[in-house]
Amino acid sequence: MKDSAVEILLVEDNPCDAELTLHSLKSSHLTNHIEVVRDGAEALDFIFCTGSYAHRSIDNGPRVILLDLKLPKVDGLEVLQKIKSDPRTRVIPVVVLTSSREERDIVESYQLGVNSYIVKPVDFEQFTEAVRQLGLYWRLLNQPPVS
Amino acid sequence: MKDSAVEILLVEDNPCDAELTLHSLKSSHLTNHIEVVRDGAEALDFIFCTGSYAHRSIDNGPRVILLDLKLPKVDGLEVLQKIKSDPRTRVIPVVVLTSSREERDIVESYQLGVNSYIVKPVDFEQFTEAVRQLGLYWRLLNQPPVS
Repeated sequence: MKDSAVEILLVEDNPCDAELTLHSLKSSHLTNHIEVVRDGAEALDFIFCTGSYAHRSIDNGPRVILLDLKLPKVDGLEVLQKIKSDPRTRVIPVVVLTSSREERDIVESYQLGVNSYIVKPVDFEQFTEAVRQLGLYWRLLNQPPVS
Repeated sequence: MKDSAVEILLVEDNPCDAELTLHSLKSSHLTNHIEVVRDGAEALDFIFCTGSYAHRSIDNGPRVILLDLKLPKVDGLEVLQKIKSDPRTRVIPVVVLTSSREERDIVESYQLGVNSYIVKPVDFEQFTEAVRQLGLYWRLLNQPPVS
């Protein structure tokens, strides 16, 4: 992994969802530089450059973080809270990509400062199309804080 | 104007850009319920239900706010700061739609909690396509805090 090359950080513990998301993004030629982490603790290590990611620089944050909510070790909402309460990382766009439609999760995510909240479609085709669209939006249309 | 019907609040002082944005959103059948305000003070009145919008309820916020930065009376960054520092309104997605590519505007917007930052393409066709894509994303893909 090159330190400066990560465009999308995917935080997803479900191997099927991770594989499907990666496949959809790569087949749309949206990005070749995706890092996948499998739990909230690893996500925080990656983002804050600690633990096994201590060699990274916090200034080289990903352009966008796709964050599942129900994660092992550290919950997705806690990961979101830590990202958005630190001036060094709050500028990184975070898109929650989750199966939860619970009002509590949605409102709490917005209160914590999530940039966007997307409910994973259950249907395979709709899931891949949703990932394609969100990839297009955040990689091509949105202007990131660090270009 | 029906109080509960506003889906998109467009804050834009340039009549040409406002017309083009409205045309692009409506021709894509994305929404029929758009409110346009022409300066920052009117935007704050609409969002916080004061002045000529005192009859509105703050619970009936728009699903998304498209916010220009260079605005008369109250600057766009100040409007953004007021929206994102009030727990009643911080959950409303705000997309900055501006001609400014200045690093200072971009980073300040993210620090203040903007949900997305889009630079208006200068080309007519690219402008309408960008508005169509952002309309699709925020009206159909993103899950708003209040459905």
